[in-house]
Amino acid sequence: MMLAPGSRIGILGGGQLGRMLAMAAARLGFDVSIYNDAPDGPASRVASESHVGAFDDLDALRDFAASVDLVKVEFENVPAATAAFLASLGPLIRPGPLALATAQDRLLEKRFFNESGVPTVAFAPIAARADLEAAFSALGAGILKTRRNGYDGRGQIRIREASDVGAAFDALGGAPAIYEQLAPFEREASLIAARTADGAFAAFDLCENIHEDGILRRTVCPAMAPADVASRAVEAVRAIAERLDYVGVLCVEFFLMPGGVLLANEMAPRVHNSGHWTEAGAQTCQFEQHIRAVAGWPLGATTRLARVEMENLLGADVGSWRSLAEQSNVRLHLYGKRTMREGRKMGHFTRIWPR
Amino acid sequence: MMLAPGSRIGILGGGQLGRMLAMAAARLGFDVSIYNDAPDGPASRVASESHVGAFDDLDALRDFAASVDLVKVEFENVPAATAAFLASLGPLIRPGPLALATAQDRLLEKRFFNESGVPTVAFAPIAARADLEAAFSALGAGILKTRRNGYDGRGQIRIREASDVGAAFDALGGAPAIYEQLAPFEREASLIAARTADGAFAAFDLCENIHEDGILRRTVCPAMAPADVASRAVEAVRAIAERLDYVGVLCVEFFLMPGGVLLANEMAPRVHNSGHWTEAGAQTCQFEQHIRAVAGWPLGATTRLARVEMENLLGADVGSWRSLAEQSNVRLHLYGKRTMREGRKMGHFTRIWPR
Repeated sequence: MMLAPGSRIGILGGGQLGRMLAMAAARLGFDVSIYNDAPDGPASRVASESHVGAFDDLDALRDFAASVDLVKVEFENVPAATAAFLASLGPLIRPGPLALATAQDRLLEKRFFNESGVPTVAFAPIAARADLEAAFSALGAGILKTRRNGYDGRGQIRIREASDVGAAFDALGGAPAIYEQLAPFEREASLIAARTADGAFAAFDLCENIHEDGILRRTVCPAMAPADVASRAVEAVRAIAERLDYVGVLCVEFFLMPGGVLLANEMAPRVHNSGHWTEAGAQTCQFEQHIRAVAGWPLGATTRLARVEMENLLGADVGSWRSLAEQSNVRLHLYGKRTMREGRKMGHFTRIWPR
Repeated sequence: MMLAPGSRIGILGGGQLGRMLAMAAARLGFDVSIYNDAPDGPASRVASESHVGAFDDLDALRDFAASVDLVKVEFENVPAATAAFLASLGPLIRPGPLALATAQDRLLEKRFFNESGVPTVAFAPIAARADLEAAFSALGAGILKTRRNGYDGRGQIRIREASDVGAAFDALGGAPAIYEQLAPFEREASLIAARTADGAFAAFDLCENIHEDGILRRTVCPAMAPADVASRAVEAVRAIAERLDYVGVLCVEFFLMPGGVLLANEMAPRVHNSGHWTEAGAQTCQFEQHIRAVAGWPLGATTRLARVEMENLLGADVGSWRSLAEQSNVRLHLYGKRTMREGRKMGHFTRIWPR
């Protein structure tokens, strides 16, 4: 059933993703209510209503859910108890707990990819030091990552030789982990796609991502990848979305390996930084696409209108807004964050090139 | 001086234009405060703050202006006293009272066009019945229009023969009027352009407009017009904007006459319905362009990314949102209005065609 314009969509999370989702929802005639753990966040300032509460305050969350027609979670690190609680409130809570639980745990996630027929690097679960020693013997150089709460490169330790193992394991402080074989990739790419409750699926073009210090710096679309690689990426994301019975926008990040091999690295059960270019250069942006999917609407066209290049404004980068505003092929997008911190995502800009 | 992101822009008027301006301002990192004469309007629901007051409540307007860094007027029919009052508060109030006063009075407006070197239909001021009789003798068939408060075809009476004159004059009820010679135009067109305080000027492509019952129904861009007509339209709007020392987005509507003659009909000192396509099909949309100009930023690129066709959803038309949502080349935009009235602008949609 299509949620009618005029309905109220609740968004859990008040950052830039919530902000862009709120504006897309407004364009479709929805009212938006934001639930965030701090007042005056970026999303609240473009929404019709704003609730402040902790993400584990179930009473406040119940009131919030009761005040809206649909709840939408902005980020995947919402506490599992919160996700389960919200799911218990009704069928309209998206994304579902399976997608959240899978995306929150690197081990479950990689297993899920493989079970969906999508290859990944070789990996091993790490609970004890002996596990890591065995994994290093079997897989060679790699990266030790906490299973949970890692994003933008946090909670990751590279292991190059056997003598690194002890310190790396100790650095985890006992957190459950995964050891992943080092992937000598040629490029990193991501695919943003959406799926509706009745199984319709649409993907945006494959993008190429450039990370610095584990944080996305730049996205170029289309990716420099052969057509068959791009279509295998689409089929991989379709398989993952179907197995999750996913509803909404989903991003899967890939390693493009020599010889055209494509390995899924991780997924985000939501709109994603590497899809921000869609707002400037695609017929439907990822934010509207997500709202359409969760509201039971048909998906919009994913046609790309130009060649695009998106760059994040991290921390002090935001100071370049003046010179960016002067460049005629630049579309600037600032998030309205009150305080700047090193590495904090303050905005982004998209350069638009004729096709 | 460029107004810095994080500054607060006040918008007078809470309808769909304010709503789209508010979202464009947010994308540039500004906070938006809406002043409207009713609560819960379309613009308030995407703004960080909302003031409710009458448009002639000067105390409330003073408080509003004091709470923001820049005031922006959404519509041209704001009371003249309000405009003058706001202008007295400081230099940052846009558009200025000259542009508002000119656009509010059809007689001043047509004289202003002619003084700017831009041709119009022949016209005559009407204060008394004898004026109308003389004007009809001189100009033949035409349209009697009130000088003020006419929009969307209201306050207009067509005169075909001498026997119509008496009833037409009486219907005015003594309001100051203008009599305009009938223009047997081939097409109606409009040009949206922007000018900055330091005189930079940029125009979007010329659009063709289809009106029904005096209300804009459909806009197609680019207009089916020879290149020299399109460039004369640009030069006409540039001349008008310069003479007004205009800052912001301005729309001038034209009649395209047989033989390539271009006559200016009226102007709107603001973003305009016939520019809504820019949100879906231009590199910078008219709303962002306006915010850029009034905030002292350089203008964005006006490059059109596709052929576009915008259609208004008037009154019950909005009921077609379901079928529009299913059409893959349609970009739907609903204004979130709580109540539907016949002929009321409830939303619009843009069809996007490859170039």
